[in-house]
Amino acid sequence: MSNHHTYKKLELVGSSTTSIEDAIQNAIAECSKSVNHLDWFEVVETRGHIVDGKVGHFQVTLKIGFRIENS
Amino acid sequence: MSNHHTYKKLELVGSSTTSIEDAIQNAIAECSKSVNHLDWFEVVETRGHIVDGKVGHFQVTLKIGFRIENS
Amino acid sequence: MSNHHTYKKLELVGSSTTSIEDAIQNAIAECSKSVNHLDWFEVVETRGHIVDGKVGHFQVTLKIGFRIENS
Amino acid sequence: MSNHHTYKKLELVGSSTTSIEDAIQNAIAECSKSVNHLDWFEVVETRGHIVDGKVGHFQVTLKIGFRIENS
Amino acid sequence: MSNHHTYKKLELVGSSTTSIEDAIQNAIAECSKSVNHLDWFEVVETRGHIVDGKVGHFQVTLKIGFRIENS
Amino acid sequence: MSNHHTYKKLELVGSSTTSIEDAIQNAIAECSKSVNHLDWFEVVETRGHIVDGKVGHFQVTLKIGFRIENS
Amino acid sequence: MSNHHTYKKLELVGSSTTSIEDAIQNAIAECSKSVNHLDWFEVVETRGHIVDGKVGHFQVTLKIGFRIENS
Amino acid sequence: MSNHHTYKKLELVGSSTTSIEDAIQNAIAECSKSVNHLDWFEVVETRGHIVDGKVGHFQVTLKIGFRIENS
Amino acid sequence: MSNHHTYKKLELVGSSTTSIEDAIQNAIAECSKSVNHLDWFEVVETRGHIVDGKVGHFQVTLKIGFRIENS
Amino acid sequence: MSNHHTYKKLELVGSSTTSIEDAIQNAIAECSKSVNHLDWFEVVETRGHIVDGKVGHFQVTLKIGFRIENS
Amino acid sequence: MSNHHTYKKLELVGSSTTSIEDAIQNAIAECSKSVNHLDWFEVVETRGHIVDGKVGHFQVTLKIGFRIENS
Amino acid sequence: MSNHHTYKKLELVGSSTTSIEDAIQNAIAECSKSVNHLDWFEVVETRGHIVDGKVGHFQVTLKIGFRIENS
Repeated sequence: MSNHHTYKKLELVGSSTTSIEDAIQNAIAECSKSVNHLDWFEVVETRGHIVDGKVGHFQVTLKIGFRIENS
Repeated sequence: MSNHHTYKKLELVGSSTTSIEDAIQNAIAECSKSVNHLDWFEVVETRGHIVDGKVGHFQVTLKIGFRIENS
Repeated sequence: MSNHHTYKKLELVGSSTTSIEDAIQNAIAECSKSVNHLDWFEVVETRGHIVDGKVGHFQVTLKIGFRIENS
Repeated sequence: MSNHHTYKKLELVGSSTTSIEDAIQNAIAECSKSVNHLDWFEVVETRGHIVDGKVGHFQVTLKIGFRIENS
Repeated sequence: MSNHHTYKKLELVGSSTTSIEDAIQNAIAECSKSVNHLDWFEVVETRGHIVDGKVGHFQVTLKIGFRIENS
Repeated sequence: MSNHHTYKKLELVGSSTTSIEDAIQNAIAECSKSVNHLDWFEVVETRGHIVDGKVGHFQVTLKIGFRIENS
Repeated sequence: MSNHHTYKKLELVGSSTTSIEDAIQNAIAECSKSVNHLDWFEVVETRGHIVDGKVGHFQVTLKIGFRIENS
Repeated sequence: MSNHHTYKKLELVGSSTTSIEDAIQNAIAECSKSVNHLDWFEVVETRGHIVDGKVGHFQVTLKIGFRIENS
Repeated sequence: MSNHHTYKKLELVGSSTTSIEDAIQNAIAECSKSVNHLDWFEVVETRGHIVDGKVGHFQVTLKIGFRIENS
Repeated sequence: MSNHHTYKKLELVGSSTTSIEDAIQNAIAECSKSVNHLDWFEVVETRGHIVDGKVGHFQVTLKIGFRIENS
Repeated sequence: MSNHHTYKKLELVGSSTTSIEDAIQNAIAECSKSVNHLDWFEVVETRGHIVDGKVGHFQVTLKIGFRIENS
Repeated sequence: MSNHHTYKKLELVGSSTTSIEDAIQNAIAECSKSVNHLDWFEVVETRGHIVDGKVGHFQVTLKIGFRIENS
């Protein structure tokens, strides 16, 4: 058995009408539909668009790290 | 009619005793009192001051982009 | 009496299963057990680990500034 | 007469369907409608949106510096 | 229907013998062969190699954002 | 009465033939002619031009923060 | 034949119990199992975890660039 | 005798009503009250607060490096 | 029992006449003499001084994270 | 024969009244008058000055890499 | 006559026992002994070493730009 | 005798088929052929190219500082 692993990082943008945390959860939920072994995330950028003088959506760019299968 | 627009970005600091999202909303609400066509925001920095071992205010620096009238 | 103060900054990582704000509060609460005059904080990084396709913990790195006693 | 000047910098986003240079020129032209003494610009970011697999608009964020009147 | 979308960002390097804009267009064209819903791009780096004292190719690193199908 | 304030940040370039501190003071003095509630500044960049092998002017780019009236 | 190529960059984290170079080699070896035309790498971050007061694993984040097939 | 040393870096904020250099000296003087072997400093940030349209205090964040005793 | 931990990060500079890895090990070894629960490190900067046209010492600045006792 | 080369990087600012690409070409052409083996360039900064509400010159700072003779 | 110029930038470290400004002046004075047409400088880093709990030397890294002869 | 020195920094890229440390040594050795008083180096970037799924060369960009003769 190998004594080391290799990980890959994907960059996603999650969005939410309610909160930054929810935007992060949405991106992770979407990512977990097609990728296994999700391990950690890093927030890269937080922004959003404005509708009628209020936040329309929070948009959070994050990197998601996962272990490569069998590595 | 022009086929392009020009946007301007302002830098504001919103604050809130409760959450980062609320500080963002407060800055956008204040900005929308005097500026039209607010379009997007970008979080630049998150900080705050501490009172009695707890967060006193969250202070969020953000850039707010808006379309210049008639551009 | 001196007309200036000197401050020191510590770097901590707070964590929380619920929110970014709660992770910040946890780090400040822990810090205030051993340090006086906590004055402000600056968020340096927001990340977390993922468990079963959901955020396990939010991990927020922050710098906490405090006035050096008698400075 | 003062032996020094003070300058102010504005942050704008110019756009163009054709080129980065044209997006810069558009932002400067728009800015010069309301501000005098424009002196220099600095490109901060270059991005754009995509329509049908081609660049729809180039969007160039730039800072524009100008001398404050009578400074 | 969901009230939010999730986006993914890819990092590509386009090249061109003629211009920076052309290098961007080439990367987007190549990307659109295999990915749908391309939405925006961000220029990360501009460089190139030199042949006989002239630019051989402009090489532009860009991130391309697209909406994840059904997100 | 509101329990939070909103601040705005302006970016200026002060100059001086004598010192960095003087360039900062000049920018703040100029800014205070037209803006109230100036609260803090942050140095962004220090540069200058050279005349006859000596510093002609120090040029200091700084951001100046002030509280928005009635916020 | 086209006079230009397009490249893609992936972000991986290689690890090793022995050295930074070995962590880089492990990530490249893993990547080459599924991707052709690997061309260059760029180190983004070097970190690791600590076990019993010694480095447990070096963890090196790197970007790996490869030419897109037929581009 | 060891052929290598280990150093530690502390982050402090010195302040002064008169100059940037004086703020640096104040931070170092305060630090030297409790730490030996101070060796070098690095300026991280220069800012200050404004009182009546003038600089109230220069606030200079600096890292101070010192050799760990017996290392 | 608490469902979260708090970590602290220290900044150290390790040095070695032989390799970057050895400089990292030396800093961690020195740190573990006085601190428990060392958990991870992050390389911040790699530099060194030169003696007779060769590397005299590799000097690696790193941040070391550890769990705060009883947090 | 050596199995490795050493390269040197120079930092230049090219200018042009017409385009960013032309400013890059001008800097490379100037550099190639006195240096051999020019190999690659990296754009560091794009700016310019403004004359009568239009771009006067584009000014592009770039690093130019070349192989050191006989290395 | 050409309608554009090319500039070169050198990176120097000036030092002074008295002030940051003096360290800048010393680097420029030294540079002007061997280079003509010095035009501008940009401060890159400010640091120094400490002797007996006081600043021994201020060390200021700066880039100095000058026009290339006949460009 | 002057109570201060001036230093210059050069940017080089060393390469090696075996290790990062060896690439650094190669750049310093090459530099010392034509420059005296080499004093320190700073690693700016670590990258390399890939041959047959393995590192072909490590390429390390570093800045090398040296004292200007008679300064």
